[in-house]
Amino acid sequence: MTNQSHTSSAAAPADTPTSVTVLGLGAMGQALAGAFLDAGHPTTVWNRTPGKGEDLVARGATRAATAGDAVRASDLVVVCLYDYDVSRAVLGPIAADLSGRVLVNLTSDTPERSREAAAWAAGQGIDYLDGAIMVPVTVIGTADALLFHSGPKAVYERHASTLKALGGNTVHLGEDHGLAAVYDNALLDFFWTSMSGLVHAFALAGADGVKGADLAPYLSALLSIFPPAIESTAIEVDSGEYPGEQAPLVTEAANVDHIIHASEHRGLDVESLNGIKAVLDRAIAKGHGADGWTAIIESVRAPEPAH
Amino acid sequence: MTNQSHTSSAAAPADTPTSVTVLGLGAMGQALAGAFLDAGHPTTVWNRTPGKGEDLVARGATRAATAGDAVRASDLVVVCLYDYDVSRAVLGPIAADLSGRVLVNLTSDTPERSREAAAWAAGQGIDYLDGAIMVPVTVIGTADALLFHSGPKAVYERHASTLKALGGNTVHLGEDHGLAAVYDNALLDFFWTSMSGLVHAFALAGADGVKGADLAPYLSALLSIFPPAIESTAIEVDSGEYPGEQAPLVTEAANVDHIIHASEHRGLDVESLNGIKAVLDRAIAKGHGADGWTAIIESVRAPEPAH
Ligand SMILES: NC(=O)c1ccc[n+]([C@@H]2O[C@H](COP(=O)([O-])OP(=O)(O)OC[C@H]3O[C@@H](n4cnc5c(N)ncnc54)[C@H](OP(=O)(O)O)[C@@H]3O)[C@@H](O)[C@H]2O)c1
Ligand SMILES: NC(=O)c1ccc[n+]([C@@H]2O[C@H](COP(=O)([O-])OP(=O)(O)OC[C@H]3O[C@@H](n4cnc5c(N)ncnc54)[C@H](OP(=O)(O)O)[C@@H]3O)[C@@H](O)[C@H]2O)c1
Repeated sequence: MTNQSHTSSAAAPADTPTSVTVLGLGAMGQALAGAFLDAGHPTTVWNRTPGKGEDLVARGATRAATAGDAVRASDLVVVCLYDYDVSRAVLGPIAADLSGRVLVNLTSDTPERSREAAAWAAGQGIDYLDGAIMVPVTVIGTADALLFHSGPKAVYERHASTLKALGGNTVHLGEDHGLAAVYDNALLDFFWTSMSGLVHAFALAGADGVKGADLAPYLSALLSIFPPAIESTAIEVDSGEYPGEQAPLVTEAANVDHIIHASEHRGLDVESLNGIKAVLDRAIAKGHGADGWTAIIESVRAPEPAH
Repeated sequence: MTNQSHTSSAAAPADTPTSVTVLGLGAMGQALAGAFLDAGHPTTVWNRTPGKGEDLVARGATRAATAGDAVRASDLVVVCLYDYDVSRAVLGPIAADLSGRVLVNLTSDTPERSREAAAWAAGQGIDYLDGAIMVPVTVIGTADALLFHSGPKAVYERHASTLKALGGNTVHLGEDHGLAAVYDNALLDFFWTSMSGLVHAFALAGADGVKGADLAPYLSALLSIFPPAIESTAIEVDSGEYPGEQAPLVTEAANVDHIIHASEHRGLDVESLNGIKAVLDRAIAKGHGADGWTAIIESVRAPEPAH
């Protein structure tokens, strides 16, 4: 079995590529299995609904009839399902098969669910890592792809080279199994909120006849503000100081009001913006009107009205 | 008056730099006046509350005692105030002084207010441009600074070189005076919504002990997804097709639910996220669950519940 013919650049030991099972062949599960195949790992796949991932089988993956069969085929089991309720329902009945193997759950959920899953795995004698995928399916398997893992460092290191087949930017965050979900939730909080604003922006300009293609270049130009904004926001969050001389929160709140008025005038959704405005208003009511935008963290942390 | 000693690279005709007045010395007004000074324009400033912009005067700006005095001093009058109610209150009484000059309002507000201001200016014999500033104060005056203008192209071209002192990326969007605000509102919709998510993300991770400095690099890494996301969203908006094979809306809605649950669990604000979730839920109720994220534009455009 030496000198396998695959020419992958994967870091798996050349002689004995780790066998991997992927449970779940949704959009992401298929991308994960594809990346393991590309890296030369014997890959077994399973999905509740049959028929998904035919091309993976054509590329050499083995389809297992049951989740239990799938798990018994490999050293490393990677799970990517809808959420932790589903993953618990799938994994619960096959705990005995998982015992002694390494289980990596890349399903997205809350830190609480990850810690709960870790406690369950410990009780079943399963070596457990909890992970999170921070890139779209098209980026999986590339050098830039960012994935988080958390849980025992020794377990992570046993399979780090195999897990890196999914993304070159694979990071072990720490021993606390909840950490991957903490970072995942925070990044998705920023990401999905931004994507909500993005679609709303296209709807708003579109209502005045502006095509998506005409607006997009300016939205992209605006992105150059984001890196310094992330950096300065982090500093302000950590210091608890929110200088507002260059842009006071009251003026920024007026901006948000204008967007709400313009949206209302065009019959568009304002609920998403009103939720944001409520946070600003509470921050201003607490005396942060002359501070900068980051001061809203004080009302994010205190959801009750200030009065 | 030829061969002035300033060595500015401004595009104003070398012999007769246009005289400029800036009304409003808030954070942004000061930056604008500073950029005009840097570019060698005789600059007159006025602010309601005295005392602001002392350094501008030290650098050669003339402080006017009244807004009327300020306006009479220059060919080009640039306004940057809190909003259009304020700008109307300031400009209304000095309409006669403005008559025959070019007035450029860089205050941010809605397209409706801009068109209203344009109608008022036309009635007063004032050449009017309505603009918007898309960069923070620190970027004003640089080659990258993005500013929009809308209104008569001929008026814009008369002062384009002077206006470019504020930013190299200065764009005339069209004759409709509302256009600058349309683009401004759309860009700010994306920007402030994103900044809301950014601060919320720091609060969420911070609740589990993650420092801003530790989270920031990953938030920055995530930014690489934004340019392709803007591009594909624009295409989907323009085509009305929202392919979801690579990431279905139901799964993305589950992400948002997890963030809401995690936020609730930590006693953080969920109102801003609930507003976004309501839009997703309406899109799914309309049958877009297997479509991609951009499908939410259908419920942004139809704020009423689907049933
Ligand atoms: N797609 C992305 O770009 C992306 C990016 C980062 C992270 N993620 C995360 O990856 C995970 C999977 O996402 P996805 O995009 O692959 O979602 P998806 O396409 O919706 O796939 C969902 C998967 O869960 C399975 N499933 C759902 N309910 C089930 C049940 N009751 N029992 C058994 N299996 C069930 C589905 O099986 P059936 O085929 O039988 O329905 C399918 O395999 C999610 O946590 C998501 O947040 C996705
Ligand atoms: N700062 C930025 O980064 C930025 C970026 C892009 C666009 N903008 C836009 O630029 C505009 C000004 O923003 P800013 O940051 O300079 O705001 P700011 O620092 O809050 O300044 C507000 C200005 O409005 C004046 N003002 C308020 N109420 C007034 C009234 N009743 N009568 C007369 N003057 C009044 C203030 O005068 P007093 O000093 O007398 O209060 C001050 O000159 C806004 O539309 C903002 O959206 C700002």
